[in-house]
Amino acid sequence: MIDTICDVYSRFGFEQLETPCIEYADALGKFLPDQEQVAEGVFEMKDDQDDKFLALRYDLTAPLARVVAEYRDDLPKPFRRYQYGPVWRREKKPGKDRFREFFQCDFDTIGCESMAADAEVCLVLSEAMHALGIEEFVVRVNNRKLLNGLLKSLDISDPGKRLGVLRTLDKLDDIGLRGIEQLLGAGRKDQSGSEDKGLNLPQAAIDTVFEFLQCKKPTRAQTCDAIAEFASGSPDGIEGVEDLRAIGEYLDVSGVSEESVVFDPSLVRGLEYYTGPVYEIELPFEVMIKGKPKKFGSVAGGGRYDYLVERFTGQKVPATGASIGVDRLLAALRELKKTESEANVGPVVVTVMDKEQGVEYQKIVNELRGAGIRSEMYVGGSKFKAQMKYADKRNSPAVIIAGGDEFESGTVTIKDMFEGKARSAEIKDNKVWRQQQPAQSTVKREDLVSTVQKILANTARAEEA
Amino acid sequence: MIDTICDVYSRFGFEQLETPCIEYADALGKFLPDQEQVAEGVFEMKDDQDDKFLALRYDLTAPLARVVAEYRDDLPKPFRRYQYGPVWRREKKPGKDRFREFFQCDFDTIGCESMAADAEVCLVLSEAMHALGIEEFVVRVNNRKLLNGLLKSLDISDPGKRLGVLRTLDKLDDIGLRGIEQLLGAGRKDQSGSEDKGLNLPQAAIDTVFEFLQCKKPTRAQTCDAIAEFASGSPDGIEGVEDLRAIGEYLDVSGVSEESVVFDPSLVRGLEYYTGPVYEIELPFEVMIKGKPKKFGSVAGGGRYDYLVERFTGQKVPATGASIGVDRLLAALRELKKTESEANVGPVVVTVMDKEQGVEYQKIVNELRGAGIRSEMYVGGSKFKAQMKYADKRNSPAVIIAGGDEFESGTVTIKDMFEGKARSAEIKDNKVWRQQQPAQSTVKREDLVSTVQKILANTARAEEA
Repeated sequence: MIDTICDVYSRFGFEQLETPCIEYADALGKFLPDQEQVAEGVFEMKDDQDDKFLALRYDLTAPLARVVAEYRDDLPKPFRRYQYGPVWRREKKPGKDRFREFFQCDFDTIGCESMAADAEVCLVLSEAMHALGIEEFVVRVNNRKLLNGLLKSLDISDPGKRLGVLRTLDKLDDIGLRGIEQLLGAGRKDQSGSEDKGLNLPQAAIDTVFEFLQCKKPTRAQTCDAIAEFASGSPDGIEGVEDLRAIGEYLDVSGVSEESVVFDPSLVRGLEYYTGPVYEIELPFEVMIKGKPKKFGSVAGGGRYDYLVERFTGQKVPATGASIGVDRLLAALRELKKTESEANVGPVVVTVMDKEQGVEYQKIVNELRGAGIRSEMYVGGSKFKAQMKYADKRNSPAVIIAGGDEFESGTVTIKDMFEGKARSAEIKDNKVWRQQQPAQSTVKREDLVSTVQKILANTARAEEA
Repeated sequence: MIDTICDVYSRFGFEQLETPCIEYADALGKFLPDQEQVAEGVFEMKDDQDDKFLALRYDLTAPLARVVAEYRDDLPKPFRRYQYGPVWRREKKPGKDRFREFFQCDFDTIGCESMAADAEVCLVLSEAMHALGIEEFVVRVNNRKLLNGLLKSLDISDPGKRLGVLRTLDKLDDIGLRGIEQLLGAGRKDQSGSEDKGLNLPQAAIDTVFEFLQCKKPTRAQTCDAIAEFASGSPDGIEGVEDLRAIGEYLDVSGVSEESVVFDPSLVRGLEYYTGPVYEIELPFEVMIKGKPKKFGSVAGGGRYDYLVERFTGQKVPATGASIGVDRLLAALRELKKTESEANVGPVVVTVMDKEQGVEYQKIVNELRGAGIRSEMYVGGSKFKAQMKYADKRNSPAVIIAGGDEFESGTVTIKDMFEGKARSAEIKDNKVWRQQQPAQSTVKREDLVSTVQKILANTARAEEA
């Protein structure tokens, strides 16, 4: 899965970068995705050698900003890198979808004002989904500028309430328009009976939010038109729509369908981090959660963040990119049965019938490897039957068997394991099985490699089918 | 480099495994390579959720032991895995060759008594070196049992002195036999004048150590014979030689030269960890260190460790494997100029002469990508000249140029960047250059893809040559 994604990133011109897992805590800054967790969200350590605190990176973007600031004179401009690796969060409640250690797979362009780069993010995300065989996905796109414009038009001064409005928008998918209305107003009881306090906005403000949300239309162009009308009085809003229109043009000429990339005013994503367009891949298929069907949801997110490098250099450096949540996506692929068969084809196993003849088996495996065949000699301590079980567990395509008879007559016995499995489903009688020894043949020693190659070719054909 | 090594591991039948970077500190145990550092050697953290300490793994073997213990009923036996990833040491003096974070690339077989597995380790290490194009290397092999036998025969009771003897042996390469003699005896002054205290062993013991070290002969078989004679009275020693002889047989039938895998009684490696054969890859070429030529030295090490899983399960599980130090090896490849050219071939860059025509450039890059060509549209904010510099920095094989003329006439201009560099070395006159515009041609739009493909094919041929 990782290789497939990284291939797509590379095809779009991004270069791989590795950075250390440990950074100085102050270099990571306060840009944790959920601002409430700033101080407690990361694993910090102190080293005897350093006055400064060290911390495990909580994402791959903050270290990227550090690298760009540190090596700004040496890097190509724009700088386009992808990166795959573990990140850490000091989660208060670690659990099934809340890991303390998990993997991200990011790509970013640093130094790009053009909306072409934001459109490209949508293209890369879509292409990654296609490459993985996921056809049912939605890349949702919004613009922080629109949300800023909305907040200004609501004329709410209390920062807590402003944050509350954004958080509420983000719940549209879960609780619907009616739920949003309640949360903006007097509050609501959820199905478990517990009460969610409302923001108690005046009715005019609630109406405005509703109008904004209803700007989402069937096509990207229609959505832009609706938002343009809604936001005509707001400089933020007007700029926000212009951005989306530019992105839309690039998507249109790239033949991106209206279903796969959608402009969606309700998308919020990171609260402090982003400054322009934001994106999210949503997988709309349903899974059962606590006995109820629910959308699988987000597997990737990103956006434009023009101020991240500025912390180091004082210069505003426009940047945009996205991050695929590897663990979430893997879970999705498993749900969709799109992962490679759990047991990949294993190595050819050369069994050892007679331990005294060890070097003879070594010669066999050397010959196979010399021909480029993935293979191993059995090095465990068990008898023949357990060796066959081992080969089975490794999903070996072929097993080589040789004992006194074979060594004397200059032959080897080769078992086609997958053919054997197929035949064993047909032949139920153990006695018949032993007599026929299907899928097993004894060949001259000089035909070892060619016979195994034939079996591997058959296996490869069967795998493809 | 990593891919090349992992391909070799896989060809020998090992499967990739990933494990978390964070483990419970008590699961990592006290098997730090250098026992003196046990408590301080790792980065520890405490989480609010856990009573137990967490720690960053200091190698890939201790976590493997934990995994094998935890999943022992599900894993194939033997279990053969390879793993690549970062490890951490809380180094007191971090520096050039002493990182706090570095990468290892390990392979191990768990559940194997047979010396075939140890011989295989030597084969894998040799093959990895060949695959990387390193022809000058030595896999040094010794056996802890021989060292145990030696220590017994010396009849030293003080554990500090026993450790001191091993540490001294390990310095043979640096200080020679004369230095060893001094350190075992009254001590020595090194070239800076600082004094190394000696172990003050009796002369008889020093003689015994010398005899042992002189067992190293030109061939593996001769070395085994010499050690067998030396150790004839020691059960440990006799067992140790038998192991080496068995390994030697497997190496001989595999056509391994006497130069590439050497039995070397002076090799010590980890002090507590290993229970049988130990291995090390040494690169004998010289580098200048503080103005003096010195062997590049070790880039990988390993050995048999039969007690690591026992800590968890109570059962002795024989295991063997090795670890390639990725950072050291990369440094070696750089010394040997065996790394891929620092600038790999980059993406085709579609330059943007006219920002208003953004979507037209997007169409061009879509077409290239549709044909499987790694390519990107320039998304930065700079003018044409800087865009060409960018393409140059990315080591682009080809640049696409299109402006008003091209759009009007349905053409594109394509520049072959590597050809351009070659020609620019020939043509010194700027005026001639501008007139001729070598390595640049304007073609019909429908010939875009085929023209770029021709350039890429030429580039690939030139790369190979």
